Amino acid sequence: MTVDEKIEIAKQLQKLNVDIIEAGFAASSPGDFQAVSTIAREVRGPVICSLARAHPNDVDQAWEAIKGAESPRIHVFLSSSDIQVMHQLRKNREEVIEMAVTMVERAKSHCSDVEFSPMDATRTNPEYLFQMLEAVIRAGATTVNIADTVGYAIPSDFARLLREVQEKVTGMDKVTLSVHCHNDLGLAVSNSLAAVEAGARQVEGCINGIGERAGNASLEEIIMGLDTRKDLFNVDINVDTTQLYPTSRLVSRITGMSVQANKAVVGENAFRHASGIHQDGVLKDRSTYEVMQPERVGVPGNSLVLGKLSGRAGLQSRLEALGYSLSREEVTTVFESFKELADKKREVTDRDLEILMDEEKRSASEPVSYLLEHIHFSSGDHDIPTATVKLVDSTGNEVVDASTGNGPVDAACKAIDRVIGCSAKLVDFNVQSVSEGLDSIGTVTVRIENDGRTFFGRGASTDIIVASAKAYLSAVNRMLAADEEANLPAVGTTPD
Amino acid sequence: MTVDEKIEIAKQLQKLNVDIIEAGFAASSPGDFQAVSTIAREVRGPVICSLARAHPNDVDQAWEAIKGAESPRIHVFLSSSDIQVMHQLRKNREEVIEMAVTMVERAKSHCSDVEFSPMDATRTNPEYLFQMLEAVIRAGATTVNIADTVGYAIPSDFARLLREVQEKVTGMDKVTLSVHCHNDLGLAVSNSLAAVEAGARQVEGCINGIGERAGNASLEEIIMGLDTRKDLFNVDINVDTTQLYPTSRLVSRITGMSVQANKAVVGENAFRHASGIHQDGVLKDRSTYEVMQPERVGVPGNSLVLGKLSGRAGLQSRLEALGYSLSREEVTTVFESFKELADKKREVTDRDLEILMDEEKRSASEPVSYLLEHIHFSSGDHDIPTATVKLVDSTGNEVVDASTGNGPVDAACKAIDRVIGCSAKLVDFNVQSVSEGLDSIGTVTVRIENDGRTFFGRGASTDIIVASAKAYLSAVNRMLAADEEANLPAVGTTPD
Repeated sequence: MTVDEKIEIAKQLQKLNVDIIEAGFAASSPGDFQAVSTIAREVRGPVICSLARAHPNDVDQAWEAIKGAESPRIHVFLSSSDIQVMHQLRKNREEVIEMAVTMVERAKSHCSDVEFSPMDATRTNPEYLFQMLEAVIRAGATTVNIADTVGYAIPSDFARLLREVQEKVTGMDKVTLSVHCHNDLGLAVSNSLAAVEAGARQVEGCINGIGERAGNASLEEIIMGLDTRKDLFNVDINVDTTQLYPTSRLVSRITGMSVQANKAVVGENAFRHASGIHQDGVLKDRSTYEVMQPERVGVPGNSLVLGKLSGRAGLQSRLEALGYSLSREEVTTVFESFKELADKKREVTDRDLEILMDEEKRSASEPVSYLLEHIHFSSGDHDIPTATVKLVDSTGNEVVDASTGNGPVDAACKAIDRVIGCSAKLVDFNVQSVSEGLDSIGTVTVRIENDGRTFFGRGASTDIIVASAKAYLSAVNRMLAADEEANLPAVGTTPD
Repeated sequence: MTVDEKIEIAKQLQKLNVDIIEAGFAASSPGDFQAVSTIAREVRGPVICSLARAHPNDVDQAWEAIKGAESPRIHVFLSSSDIQVMHQLRKNREEVIEMAVTMVERAKSHCSDVEFSPMDATRTNPEYLFQMLEAVIRAGATTVNIADTVGYAIPSDFARLLREVQEKVTGMDKVTLSVHCHNDLGLAVSNSLAAVEAGARQVEGCINGIGERAGNASLEEIIMGLDTRKDLFNVDINVDTTQLYPTSRLVSRITGMSVQANKAVVGENAFRHASGIHQDGVLKDRSTYEVMQPERVGVPGNSLVLGKLSGRAGLQSRLEALGYSLSREEVTTVFESFKELADKKREVTDRDLEILMDEEKRSASEPVSYLLEHIHFSSGDHDIPTATVKLVDSTGNEVVDASTGNGPVDAACKAIDRVIGCSAKLVDFNVQSVSEGLDSIGTVTVRIENDGRTFFGRGASTDIIVASAKAYLSAVNRMLAADEEANLPAVGTTPD
């Protein structure tokens, strides 16, 4: 993700009205530092937090990045399980507690709001865990976060551990108990909810459940669990649930991680009733087969379909329903692209509009060393796939070349490689499904690898080969921009 | 799914060694009846079960379909919640219990193994639920299945309900307690596991968590939860966990429902460590960040890469590792296609092999009214996308035509429509991501709609436009076959 994309997501999380945004891991790279500090300056409302390993430099850099925030927080984490302490840190238990205490104190000297996470807490000896928690609370931690880093916990057992933490750790009643669950056994959401039942008052998660391996707890599922079963949980949350669907769409578009159709709450099929018996029931009374209404999570109704004859007002109101807020000038630009598209296809769907908006935004913010001026290709089952491209570089030079390939996408990418004189390895190629007819716009996302760094690109068109070429070129442009600023390495995933 | 595809999945479930296969809903359509009865005859080992509404005809047809099974079971279901009883069934509580009892007795007259499900049990008045369960147990039900039909339950609360069922329902100790959970709040797996903790000894679920709306409980996650945390659950399961990954892949290929990358247990990223800290830990000791080993669920290792120089033995052993068992003749046919592919691409990956196997199998079993003899297309960002196709019908006639479109896929499908003289609506178009380089084979799956019926098609090629045309034509062929046998309507999803 670029810095701009991270900020866009942070602003959407602000709209969703979450309490805390962990904006990144400031010390991990200059790019991450820049993202965290920009979010700290620009996003008001939520607490803005940076992650930091238990190293002096990490803690200091975290503070440098977040000090401009309205409500800054430093989050220090350190392994606590024997298996990680011994095999990874290669220290003894006492040394590890001392590291934790020293670093919490250092964080506290910068900032009153300090979170501490014993990593792999669920596989940690409980007595040792309690001892560590007591020590960091004495050192000034205001939130302690029980991390199920490897997704090992089972709800009933996890709840027992959390009750014990509250009973046995001196000072626990003065600080916030938090949990951070991973999904290796598919239990991240239920562990988080079990934790709330057991007294936790902060839950960490990710929209769409993205994250390391099988991912983190899905925030949208946790939120709708708490909301739908308020009768059981009896806790108040400040979240605007109608922003869940727009947030999920945004995160999916930006990360290129598609959401499974049968994903709870935000999947395409989450509110679709396929079986005859269920359809019959829903027609008679929605509550027969629905525990929550699609509108509650912001899934837009389908009453309004835009087309050639739709006006600027219709477009604007639909975009607002989809979660965009636009200035008058922006509406004017988007309206032009909309008209162009409406000429090509009969019905302009919500998905089309999202892609349109996305393209508009990105063309304004992306690094561009080469522009795709023209592409032509031909292929077939007994042909040799061939593509011709014309690129324009930043000085206005036009370069034309052609290549064959295993298919038209391969040929187009190889032709681009020839013009630019580069050669990146494509590691991921993904076509977002076009759900409402053949004439819809297709979005292609790609990931390329070069020298151990990964770059992401995206392109959209009614022609998927053109979209693929655009996506590949956008990834290559990002790679070239990164090469130029060689002192700004690609942003890696933050460890958690 | 065709009957053949259902049988293929049932045979894989047999390999996985599940205890029971609910093969379908015999009374819902002649196609489903045929699938259930074939599975009953051909699959040995697991109990084979057919679903039945609480109607005499359903129960009798279920029996007709499964009576050839080694161990047949009839599963009768009926709404129990006031909201469904009143709004959908429009009966009173007593009438509903009577329906249940009569139908369980009728099922029992056919078959000793009878399961009964109170549908929407979790939103049912508990006293009424207990009364209904007692009545069906007296009537002969041997398994009672508490269905969380709308995905409303929370683990702690669900466990409480199940404990109460065991305490308060007379006769419960003589029958098997089962649960059936839906995933609307993302809790299907954890509700199932909480049920096992509370004493349930049958759990219903689906591979990859597919199903109505947000889906059913993911079988692979439940199984790996029970397996990984045997220390807590202390129950024995007969499942061969190393068949989980092959089963997941098969179900995904056949249904065209792709598995999210960060899906627990079977997702592409489930065992991928992206962050530096995690990678460092795993290199030092895998257990630092992994609670289960990929091999345990049958994810094949990547040590062996096939290519141009690989021989028949290497191919066969790799296919066996991927879960295929082949006769000598089959190996010979596959080896030819393999050689053809290896000429086109340097490394033949496991994913490529799966697609190859898939194509081989399908070309033998699919209905074919028209064959794609030739396709050619050309397009570009300033061109008019144009495709030419030559199809051969079953009498050997060759027909050629061309069409323009919004993109090359659209043009190719329209050219096919012209030749055949049909026009189906494309409702879903999906390109399976090519994960290991641009020269991999891409698989395209499509769903087309005609007269309210949906048909599925699949195609593979290193050229995604060619793959798309193949997929579209295969869906059209299925549609034409269904039109011919107008008395065999398309198989719908079974209600649950």
